[in-house]
Amino acid sequence: MDTPSRRINIAFAKKKTAKQQPCSFIIFGATGHLAATKLLPALFHLESCRRIAKNMTIIAFARREWSLDQWKTHVCDSLKDKISSQQQKVILKQFLKRFRYQQGNFDDLAAYQQLADNLQCESSCTQTVFYLAIKPTVFSTVIKNLELTGLNKPCGTSRIVVEKPFGRDLNSARTLNQLLHQSFNEEQIYRIDHFLGKEMVQNLFVFRFANTLIESLWNRNYIDHVEITVAESAGVGNRADYYDQVGALRDMVQNHLIQLLAVIAMEPPCSLDADELRDEKVKVLRSIRPIHSNQIDEYAIRGQYAHGSVDGEHAAGYLQEKDVKKDSITETFAAVKFYIDNWRWSDVPFYLRTGKRLTQQASMIAIRFKLPPQQLFRATPSQTVAPNWMLLSIQPEKSMKIEIHAKQPGLGMETRITQMDASFLKNNEQSLDAYETLLLDIIEGDRSLFIRFDEVEMAWQVIEPILEHWKEKATTTAIPAYPAGSWGPKEANQWFSNQNQNWRNTL
Amino acid sequence: MDTPSRRINIAFAKKKTAKQQPCSFIIFGATGHLAATKLLPALFHLESCRRIAKNMTIIAFARREWSLDQWKTHVCDSLKDKISSQQQKVILKQFLKRFRYQQGNFDDLAAYQQLADNLQCESSCTQTVFYLAIKPTVFSTVIKNLELTGLNKPCGTSRIVVEKPFGRDLNSARTLNQLLHQSFNEEQIYRIDHFLGKEMVQNLFVFRFANTLIESLWNRNYIDHVEITVAESAGVGNRADYYDQVGALRDMVQNHLIQLLAVIAMEPPCSLDADELRDEKVKVLRSIRPIHSNQIDEYAIRGQYAHGSVDGEHAAGYLQEKDVKKDSITETFAAVKFYIDNWRWSDVPFYLRTGKRLTQQASMIAIRFKLPPQQLFRATPSQTVAPNWMLLSIQPEKSMKIEIHAKQPGLGMETRITQMDASFLKNNEQSLDAYETLLLDIIEGDRSLFIRFDEVEMAWQVIEPILEHWKEKATTTAIPAYPAGSWGPKEANQWFSNQNQNWRNTL
Repeated sequence: MDTPSRRINIAFAKKKTAKQQPCSFIIFGATGHLAATKLLPALFHLESCRRIAKNMTIIAFARREWSLDQWKTHVCDSLKDKISSQQQKVILKQFLKRFRYQQGNFDDLAAYQQLADNLQCESSCTQTVFYLAIKPTVFSTVIKNLELTGLNKPCGTSRIVVEKPFGRDLNSARTLNQLLHQSFNEEQIYRIDHFLGKEMVQNLFVFRFANTLIESLWNRNYIDHVEITVAESAGVGNRADYYDQVGALRDMVQNHLIQLLAVIAMEPPCSLDADELRDEKVKVLRSIRPIHSNQIDEYAIRGQYAHGSVDGEHAAGYLQEKDVKKDSITETFAAVKFYIDNWRWSDVPFYLRTGKRLTQQASMIAIRFKLPPQQLFRATPSQTVAPNWMLLSIQPEKSMKIEIHAKQPGLGMETRITQMDASFLKNNEQSLDAYETLLLDIIEGDRSLFIRFDEVEMAWQVIEPILEHWKEKATTTAIPAYPAGSWGPKEANQWFSNQNQNWRNTL
Repeated sequence: MDTPSRRINIAFAKKKTAKQQPCSFIIFGATGHLAATKLLPALFHLESCRRIAKNMTIIAFARREWSLDQWKTHVCDSLKDKISSQQQKVILKQFLKRFRYQQGNFDDLAAYQQLADNLQCESSCTQTVFYLAIKPTVFSTVIKNLELTGLNKPCGTSRIVVEKPFGRDLNSARTLNQLLHQSFNEEQIYRIDHFLGKEMVQNLFVFRFANTLIESLWNRNYIDHVEITVAESAGVGNRADYYDQVGALRDMVQNHLIQLLAVIAMEPPCSLDADELRDEKVKVLRSIRPIHSNQIDEYAIRGQYAHGSVDGEHAAGYLQEKDVKKDSITETFAAVKFYIDNWRWSDVPFYLRTGKRLTQQASMIAIRFKLPPQQLFRATPSQTVAPNWMLLSIQPEKSMKIEIHAKQPGLGMETRITQMDASFLKNNEQSLDAYETLLLDIIEGDRSLFIRFDEVEMAWQVIEPILEHWKEKATTTAIPAYPAGSWGPKEANQWFSNQNQNWRNTL
């Protein structure tokens, strides 16, 4: 059992002052990519901020036959970009003391038993976190072995952290969830969607619910449509063995983009309590208008990158990438239009798009407001009045901009567009990586920014008709190609509900 | 007769392309302060922008026995700050060719006859503008002599421009208006309030009526209260012989501050037509809740500056200033609270204040929004959520800022206040003086930014009960003093309708 929701709420609100509990943090797949690029740097940063309890141990569980010293060398290698000052070297020294190394294959029960014995030696009744930084194919092996060795029910609390993908469709997600629930109850399960840990996504909560100026306009009376873009300029890289089985819709839309949609569209929760927040997100997902099977081509567009040019360099097409099947029909671009049939959003289209090898790397939310009902300044020679926009940039830039009309200085009454800019970071401030926020939440037992299973379930339910339609189409229709370095297939630019709607590609 | 309202509308909207008509521009009181500091520089700037028709003549009418060359020397002196480049010298040369000098006392009918003869020689059927840059005491003399010599009814159009003060109370304003109407009809009369020519005041029209984001929030549902400040750091200077008879309420509130209130509070007009605009302003003034005579002390505060310190230098008190009566009870500070009893503004207080020898020179509008109905982030340790503000600075800075809450970067969900800034001027842009806009409007026959008599009348009606109350009080109560360099008498800071309201002194 975990802390009750009331405590979680306070933890969420008062995180900075929350009590730091002793903890054993076990990383399965510790020698892998995620651990090296995200988990170790995030934990190191939390160490630097003194946000980890003194008696927290970090246990690396991995297959490689390494000694503890070899592991520590690997940790140092992973962090070498972060260490420059003398102070950082001191912190690193302290950080390295936390580590243990548990060698073992994921199916080697004895290794789990060793881990359990060591945990009992360490101390009694601490919190235990099992972070599964592993491929989905070994999820079930690890979970079963944790149960067999009683690690799921220590005398303290235990938590298990699961990375995406959570299944590859509704059924497999349910199967995975059942498996998890055989050994852990819901309060112990932390399903990560790291987009929710991003500063600008959390900022959305503040923008909306701390500002009369914003939340009052946040509905169908004032908003014309919403655009959510998660664009990558990179191609599939070394991940084709995974990605080619999955595609953009599963890899990005089902989780990150739908989560962004839910945070944008949700009603104000009763409180910042984890379940209140997630109840509201689920309500949004339940209100998404189902897409009728014969209308899917009007609502969803797919594409696959052909060769082209990105940042001035030649980029190969998807089919030429390493480990991609030569006749792959996996989509590397997906755009979906959703309507949310409730009082707040009825008839306001939400346009979502994501893709690899697009013009630039940019995650952003663009909200277009309706035109003023009266065009008082239309008679001016220069321009017709454009609509207002609110532009939230999540990455790489972190900013919020509001685009309004002001008078053009000078004689005469002409208007021009002015951007009001609220950069997120001031002067010397540094932004956190999403994982820093999320790992601290896990350690402190705050599930607000983690995904509840009903969210996963609803998200699959929403996209499954599209997946099925595309699968059927595969036998008859070629997947539209788009040149690497473009904004996706041309179909995605001729597809809006209204003539005056269009993708906003620049901030 | 002047151009019909439809043409005026187009002139207002398409000013830049409006046809430039030949014109004789006659300045009465041409050797005075207003002409030297405002009118000549503004006309020179219009010359630089090629916005004055080639055949426009400027006639200086003044008492001094000057030759045309002496007058031109005076013009050059008045413009010496504006002339540096060779190009400006060329423009000045061209500008000087426009001038004639008509010597005459204001009561010297022969001088008017000479003026009329000269105008007929110049050309027939041009526009004639009579700009009364003179003391109110000679208004009637000039107007009568214009009529006696037929100058009010030339074969072309004629316009007469009247500076404030337009009367010193409702009755005297009506008398002055009757006098004007004996010789001119309403379409010929341009009552200047130069605040309406200020860029940021015209910007208010654009902000409000070209932006869904702003106008949608512009009402009692979202706005808690409105503050209008026109603060001067200067004292009465050399103007005491005028000012001591007038006081802050007549000098500033009756015109500038009430005009700002009207522009902030007006409904969207049907079009930018001069009369449509002014109809809407009059509706606001008619909706101002009358202040009952026994409640005036709750609605209006006066004060007079005592000695103090401004910008680090000692400043004398008002009673020690040159030409001020030693027992003067003239107010140099006035604050008034108005309610506008209509659907849009009911129960939203409008706080107006103006004064001399205040902390700083600043004309600004501060609009406070209501608190969010739910204080989701109140539990954070740092701060309770403050309300949103919209801050419009008219002078010296020209800007619009919106103050909202954003997430404090870092771990935890704390909020901080962020300002979104839309500076009016970009990079090398230069702002116009209000007179440049207004003189061009006069020449082109656009009365949108000039005051119609019913506005004058309503403004006097609104402040007259306060004037009378203060006059009565004078015999029994001393006027509250405030130190030079402060924000006015302490009474004005303890006077708000709600406990959480307060003057916003900084942008």
